[in-house]
Amino acid sequence: MTATMPQTVALTGQMLIAGNPVHGTGKQITAFDPSAEQPLQPTYRHGDRSHVNAACAAALAAFATYRASTAAERAAFLETIAGNIELIRDDIIARAMAETGLPQARITGEVARTTGQLRLFADLLREGSWNGARIDPALPDRDPLPRPDLRQRAVPLGPVAVFAASNFPLAFSVAGGDTASALAAGCPVVVKAHDAHPGTSELVGRAITEAVAAAGLPAGTFSLLFGSGPDLGIALVTDPRIKAVGFTGSRSGGMALVEAAAQRPEPIPVYAEMSSINPVFLLDGALTQRAADLGRAFVTSLTTGSGQLCTNPGLVIAVDGNGLDAFLAAARDALADSAAAPMLTPGIARSYADGVAALTREAELVGSGQGSDSQTNCQAALFATDARSLLASETLQAEVFGAASLVIRCRDAAEMRAVAENIEGQLTATVHAEPSDYDDARDLIPLLELKAGRILFNGWPTGVEVGHAMVHGGPYPATSDSRSTSVGSRAIERFLRPVCYQDVPKSLLPSAIADGNPDHLWRRIDGRLQQN
Amino acid sequence: MTATMPQTVALTGQMLIAGNPVHGTGKQITAFDPSAEQPLQPTYRHGDRSHVNAACAAALAAFATYRASTAAERAAFLETIAGNIELIRDDIIARAMAETGLPQARITGEVARTTGQLRLFADLLREGSWNGARIDPALPDRDPLPRPDLRQRAVPLGPVAVFAASNFPLAFSVAGGDTASALAAGCPVVVKAHDAHPGTSELVGRAITEAVAAAGLPAGTFSLLFGSGPDLGIALVTDPRIKAVGFTGSRSGGMALVEAAAQRPEPIPVYAEMSSINPVFLLDGALTQRAADLGRAFVTSLTTGSGQLCTNPGLVIAVDGNGLDAFLAAARDALADSAAAPMLTPGIARSYADGVAALTREAELVGSGQGSDSQTNCQAALFATDARSLLASETLQAEVFGAASLVIRCRDAAEMRAVAENIEGQLTATVHAEPSDYDDARDLIPLLELKAGRILFNGWPTGVEVGHAMVHGGPYPATSDSRSTSVGSRAIERFLRPVCYQDVPKSLLPSAIADGNPDHLWRRIDGRLQQN
Repeated sequence: MTATMPQTVALTGQMLIAGNPVHGTGKQITAFDPSAEQPLQPTYRHGDRSHVNAACAAALAAFATYRASTAAERAAFLETIAGNIELIRDDIIARAMAETGLPQARITGEVARTTGQLRLFADLLREGSWNGARIDPALPDRDPLPRPDLRQRAVPLGPVAVFAASNFPLAFSVAGGDTASALAAGCPVVVKAHDAHPGTSELVGRAITEAVAAAGLPAGTFSLLFGSGPDLGIALVTDPRIKAVGFTGSRSGGMALVEAAAQRPEPIPVYAEMSSINPVFLLDGALTQRAADLGRAFVTSLTTGSGQLCTNPGLVIAVDGNGLDAFLAAARDALADSAAAPMLTPGIARSYADGVAALTREAELVGSGQGSDSQTNCQAALFATDARSLLASETLQAEVFGAASLVIRCRDAAEMRAVAENIEGQLTATVHAEPSDYDDARDLIPLLELKAGRILFNGWPTGVEVGHAMVHGGPYPATSDSRSTSVGSRAIERFLRPVCYQDVPKSLLPSAIADGNPDHLWRRIDGRLQQN
Repeated sequence: MTATMPQTVALTGQMLIAGNPVHGTGKQITAFDPSAEQPLQPTYRHGDRSHVNAACAAALAAFATYRASTAAERAAFLETIAGNIELIRDDIIARAMAETGLPQARITGEVARTTGQLRLFADLLREGSWNGARIDPALPDRDPLPRPDLRQRAVPLGPVAVFAASNFPLAFSVAGGDTASALAAGCPVVVKAHDAHPGTSELVGRAITEAVAAAGLPAGTFSLLFGSGPDLGIALVTDPRIKAVGFTGSRSGGMALVEAAAQRPEPIPVYAEMSSINPVFLLDGALTQRAADLGRAFVTSLTTGSGQLCTNPGLVIAVDGNGLDAFLAAARDALADSAAAPMLTPGIARSYADGVAALTREAELVGSGQGSDSQTNCQAALFATDARSLLASETLQAEVFGAASLVIRCRDAAEMRAVAENIEGQLTATVHAEPSDYDDARDLIPLLELKAGRILFNGWPTGVEVGHAMVHGGPYPATSDSRSTSVGSRAIERFLRPVCYQDVPKSLLPSAIADGNPDHLWRRIDGRLQQN
């Protein structure tokens, strides 16, 4: 295992700006242990515009050197970050559990996912397809005009701002998918940590900072800031040195960054992964054959992580009848056995309670999880209504972050399709179907393709595999840019742009597009793939 | 040759909305023959919001059917458009020459380029790489959790709005690169024609409309509108049914569309190709060996199409000295022989005169082309200044659309690099270098990679090859989205987004990602390319 830091790290309560620990000057942040209902030391403070300025200046200064690193060097760097995280994983797990109230198995799995993501991008860097290498060889004798020698490869966009999520303190946070894919692309990263887990953020930030130093990279390759609002988040997005933004969070938070970016003279890509209620379509055959099993499995998916997952199944659509009644009965029983569990922060718990109250006003409550005395615990809730009410109401279509879901009783398959056609964009759309349902499913898939980044059958949307074929994205409001994915190897493409080299002398060409293919890449020669 | 229309077409002065000729209701447009200095019949009129509404409604209605067409069907459709254009090419050439004042050879070449682009996308559709097919096979026995079967392919975004350019009445207009790539992707297209060549637009629009009908596609697959401002251009970009925008034109026009799109609730991609002054760096060895040849070749590139090209060389950077003096002397002589030539429209000619007047106030005039009595002719103009003045002035960095260029006398190679580092984003950056210059060139290339979409050596930026490795794009303000190209086969990617299919039953999978690879595609299996 590659690792470059001491095994025990004392938290300092500081930001990390280009390798330097810096105390914030603004609002105090004290992490809160939702299980113990107690504040956690040390105290952190928000940074201000001067910290944004320092981090962005260092990132730009680092960019020329960092982007000139070889893919192999960046791969080793990512692996060192993974090694450092593993070296201090016990500290990270303990702190993340305290800060989030999430169980040990979940956090342990998330550490593995985070290091796995870093290593996936290291492998991708060595494999080389991310270069997008293309060569259209010169045709000096072409009539009426000769063709020049044209070669294309990808280059990094520049410094990237990453806004960490509340609900994945590791995999979508300081060293999460956005950071890993931006660093892999050759872009320095400035992370805005989430206030909900500052200690976890500092620990992981230290792991990255140590890896930067060990690799001999410029210190500005990575910075970690705390803060919010115009002084920090908006200042970061509107800094002219920032060339792309990654964000995971709420619709209001994501759209605030999109709007801030739109005020810049120079448009930049903003990849905001925002809100999704992840519709689940239960077709007749599936309900007939396995309604009770579906009801129980649904509740397991709904209550995972207290429902605080981007892919939580917040909407269930089925034709009304005995099958749906059996599904609801099983779900109601499973919910009744489902214990209240802590939510990430008191604020998230309050928002959840507001969302449940709004659903209660507009839909019928059909089942609840167990209650609790704690204000920060999540009591799961299941509602039902009809399709017409759903499509007429913004409230019913809004994401309630937590273990709440809404079942839509449809009159027939046509009404299910109408729901598919008229809901907002989603990260996922799920279909439960038996072979007898395939004709209905065949009608549904084209509608779902326009609404979701991932279509899944006979499973549940929670649990996002990190691989090459994954899409964690989708039409607005699921994301602000449906052309990309924030999970899996294609995430690197978000931070690259193509450059064409015309008649550039052989000795000056980058190796990815050099004669003789020194990097042994698959390259598109006259549009056809070749590896020689 | 596939073609489906009569060989002679009488112009009607109408828009084409989902196959129907419709008279506009707004401002009258009369094309103007800049050579003959005479108006051209028939008269057209701008459309209004009702026409935008009708075209977008038809485009959305067509989308479900059009996107379900096979790649082979779309390829044949694009070839029919090309065949129809060739069938009426004599009419098109005559009308385009009259409307633009561009010479026959140029328009004839542009027709060939336009049909060539359509056929390039037809070939690409059959080749299939645009599907982006990826499969991560299921790992049912993986510990601790099984991996589902995950497959990814690209789907079209939805109806696309295309804003035609003034300066390429065919290749960047009604059936130009934006339309060809959007139709190839499976997106219906609504074109906003350019007022400068309405007759050419109607002719080409008829060629597409006839091809839509012959292919049995829904009529809303294509519409052609005339108009401008809030009632048409902005209405089109803000219509919720439009899912992407392609534009070629001025910076102010492009940014107006970017800003309008930012007002939409749903963010959409806007691909605006805007302004570029295409710096040319003359290194010492090149100037020593071939200053006079460079001066003459520069003027040929500068005055092509009266300088009305996006890649016109508007900025020349060199170290001051005998070599640069020789270059300027040769350029001055060549300019003196360069005849005035008509510009596309009286408005463009007025803007050019304003731009030249602004340069005259801030820089030294070092040479001019021949003058003329006509108000619509372009008199080429060459200016010079120093690097400090350039970098301090917005005026000197602004694009002057036409045959004007500015030479920057630098003190040394470091000052040339400072210019490279501090200019705005560009479509192209050119370097003239001999082997003795390669060390300087090696320092320059990384700077140019951050500023331009295409870097070329020992040539001139005008003349954009249509192929697989071309990038016609670049950082702002060259475009509003540097991640893409508007020329070449990769342009199709602008109108696609990925969808992941998880555990979808085999019989319901799209053929691109089906078992057995029925489409014989190169696919990424577990991240590795395979064709089986």
